[in-house]
Amino acid sequence: MLHPVVLSGGSGTRLWPMSRQDRPKQFLALVGDRSLYQETVLRAVGLPGMQAPITVCSEAHRFTVGEQLQAIGVASGGIVLEPVARNTAPAIALAALHAQARDPDAVLLVMPADHLIEDEAAFREAVLKAVELAGDDWLVAFGINPDYAETGYGYIRRGEALGSAGFRIERFVEKPDLETAERYLADGGYSWNSGMFLFRASRYLEELGAHAPEIVEAAGQAYAASGADLDFIRVDGEAFAASPSDSIDYAVMEKTDRAAVVPVSCGWSDIGSWSSLWSVAERDEAGNKTEGDVIAIDTQGSLIRAAERRLVATVGVEDLVIIDTADATLVARKDRVQEVKAVVDRLKAEGRTEHLSHRKVFRPWGSYDSIGVGPRFQVKRIVVKPGAALSLQKHQHRAEHWVVVSGVAEVTCDERVFELKENESTFIPQGSVHRLRNRGTEPVELIEVQSGGYLGEDDIVRLEDVYGRS
Amino acid sequence: MLHPVVLSGGSGTRLWPMSRQDRPKQFLALVGDRSLYQETVLRAVGLPGMQAPITVCSEAHRFTVGEQLQAIGVASGGIVLEPVARNTAPAIALAALHAQARDPDAVLLVMPADHLIEDEAAFREAVLKAVELAGDDWLVAFGINPDYAETGYGYIRRGEALGSAGFRIERFVEKPDLETAERYLADGGYSWNSGMFLFRASRYLEELGAHAPEIVEAAGQAYAASGADLDFIRVDGEAFAASPSDSIDYAVMEKTDRAAVVPVSCGWSDIGSWSSLWSVAERDEAGNKTEGDVIAIDTQGSLIRAAERRLVATVGVEDLVIIDTADATLVARKDRVQEVKAVVDRLKAEGRTEHLSHRKVFRPWGSYDSIGVGPRFQVKRIVVKPGAALSLQKHQHRAEHWVVVSGVAEVTCDERVFELKENESTFIPQGSVHRLRNRGTEPVELIEVQSGGYLGEDDIVRLEDVYGRS
Repeated sequence: MLHPVVLSGGSGTRLWPMSRQDRPKQFLALVGDRSLYQETVLRAVGLPGMQAPITVCSEAHRFTVGEQLQAIGVASGGIVLEPVARNTAPAIALAALHAQARDPDAVLLVMPADHLIEDEAAFREAVLKAVELAGDDWLVAFGINPDYAETGYGYIRRGEALGSAGFRIERFVEKPDLETAERYLADGGYSWNSGMFLFRASRYLEELGAHAPEIVEAAGQAYAASGADLDFIRVDGEAFAASPSDSIDYAVMEKTDRAAVVPVSCGWSDIGSWSSLWSVAERDEAGNKTEGDVIAIDTQGSLIRAAERRLVATVGVEDLVIIDTADATLVARKDRVQEVKAVVDRLKAEGRTEHLSHRKVFRPWGSYDSIGVGPRFQVKRIVVKPGAALSLQKHQHRAEHWVVVSGVAEVTCDERVFELKENESTFIPQGSVHRLRNRGTEPVELIEVQSGGYLGEDDIVRLEDVYGRS
Repeated sequence: MLHPVVLSGGSGTRLWPMSRQDRPKQFLALVGDRSLYQETVLRAVGLPGMQAPITVCSEAHRFTVGEQLQAIGVASGGIVLEPVARNTAPAIALAALHAQARDPDAVLLVMPADHLIEDEAAFREAVLKAVELAGDDWLVAFGINPDYAETGYGYIRRGEALGSAGFRIERFVEKPDLETAERYLADGGYSWNSGMFLFRASRYLEELGAHAPEIVEAAGQAYAASGADLDFIRVDGEAFAASPSDSIDYAVMEKTDRAAVVPVSCGWSDIGSWSSLWSVAERDEAGNKTEGDVIAIDTQGSLIRAAERRLVATVGVEDLVIIDTADATLVARKDRVQEVKAVVDRLKAEGRTEHLSHRKVFRPWGSYDSIGVGPRFQVKRIVVKPGAALSLQKHQHRAEHWVVVSGVAEVTCDERVFELKENESTFIPQGSVHRLRNRGTEPVELIEVQSGGYLGEDDIVRLEDVYGRS
């Protein structure tokens, strides 16, 4: 049976300021209403005979993965948490072990969580070809027929044909210079390496064992010692950390003699930068792609996104990328967007936070948005999802005023437990043990005014937490 | 005696989104810490023998003018409110009448409120020359020695020398095309028309009477029927509205045979656009002028302003103007900034508000900033100045929660009057008569959460108001 494995790695720093460490590219609705991760999952589970998706992600993104699956009504085949990042080969090994535990003959369709595929029918056809090859013990890479001489991707050189399904891989080649890329394009025998693969789990583990035994050993030990925590599979951190860090390309695909490629034209993009998002977007007559509240006067060839409740106006500009968010705006030349990483590097070096999280922060129970800050106060807009609860907690240095503006909250404040409805407020004194819970079926929204001499997020003592964070 | 007359007209639409209808260009700190209006006042009152400044402004800006004078510790010589805009000739007539009422021999130094002068010593020298000419009954225009062939200004052609003080004006010329402007520059006998003038009030009114008798009559009747309202001189609206709308240039200066010009090089700029602000600003090595939190990577020749608590990052761009505010961001090519007006026109046509006011709105008692909005609620950050009070008021459709975060507020709520300190809150029920007052010496800051089905600013019944707005 076929098991989708979605790899939610990648920090997406080139898509700053939309992409932040705690909500990177794969979880953003960059094209359409669903996130790239959601699109990836739906694309896979739509294929015939496909099992529930296995997601491999970092600890920090576990609740986001769970919520995004829930939002599209897809049952999880397991959310495997990587204790540390060790690149794709060990991550896929964990997924292979997890799939095998349920299905010894599992076939894995491995997909990065942050790619776009426009032609699902073509992709489906390619998967069927790959399944055929995997049945003959091939490890299959999906190769993308190149549209142009891209220098940002690795290439796969095809060898002899394997029936009508695909080709033996002659060799993998690194990102070429422009001249070489043009030669590859003209040659016709090269594909872009998409990072998508299909193979039997057992074959992958065998080949990994042959070519990178330390990885298979570390992943095996880590998975053997794993435990379930809520919906998450938490593998042994120490064992996994002992694994070398390596990609599936280096560790397996370039070494095995059973590597095959299925070339496909499926409107694939890795959305590696703002300019590639512009390339795949539906643009207006002037070549602009705008989202949100934008007034573009005599503006051409630009990607412009306005944040909620904000207007972006442009006059006489061309070939720009303008990305506006609640706390940061990027203005870049479209052909220079690879250097957005330099902004993120600067933010890191200066110990800032605009690369880590948005002003609006997502939590397993909902979200908060810091809408106002002063010398001894902070105002947050808090949303608690139906059925959710914040931890039972207390603060050393701040008191809180809560005004409910939507829904019905259940408030615990020391000994008292009471309901707070729209247009009602309460006061949480400094040091009191309190909790906010939503027992209703609609979200609870409230305004919190924090008052005190220190207002950092770390002034919190969690006494109890339904999400295992205490 | 010399009386400065500061004309606070002009909407400054080309400096959107910083300049808005309720707080246009002249009231903004565009260069340094003080507004252009404040700089204009200080420049004038620093001259020897200068009397308190007379300001002519619109009704909408009266409190801003009063506050900005107070902030620089300058006593007002009168804030004359124009009931309707009738261009400069009638406005100056009101100021002349007002000055004459106190000083029949008043000499007026007329200055637009929104110009920049870098070399105050040169300006002072020019004023002394103009005073000398005014003593001989000349009406003096200040001409700026042109630095380059500007096509955006009118020019003044000088005639015969009047001693060493200045020249008779041969003629005024309209904004020229580039070729003509270049000829003027080469000729050396032309100055830019700065819009600044100096003359005896009586002479101005005589000449206006001779060449535009309807203006003098309308202004005379309007001023004769004026009344004082707080610090403001409120002239008769109907009488003033009967005046033709005309500039001092057309109505007087081009017609009188006693027009003189004093040419001066004083680092003058009318800051008519974002590019002219960039021109006068001190720029870094890359030719950028940045304000606020800006990360500029490989960026040249640009003007970049980030709003409070927001970051603007640029990559690989040049010759841009990027102006970021709490609710709108402009990105324009520096040589196309004249067309910013087109954005404002679009906002007007669409019935929007981003050209009318900033998210933070100034009131005579302080300010409010709408920091959060939802379907049935709004969150405002309110600052009440020491000694100030909001009107005694009530709302039909909303209740309000107030949390004081700084200072001590005096709250009236129906029959109760009580103090509210930092970290204290109260509830103002829908329909209750309430008032917020600051009897302290520090600003009061509070967070207001409004709750209700209609939250428009027009849901207010003012029962009493110290600013005469009830």
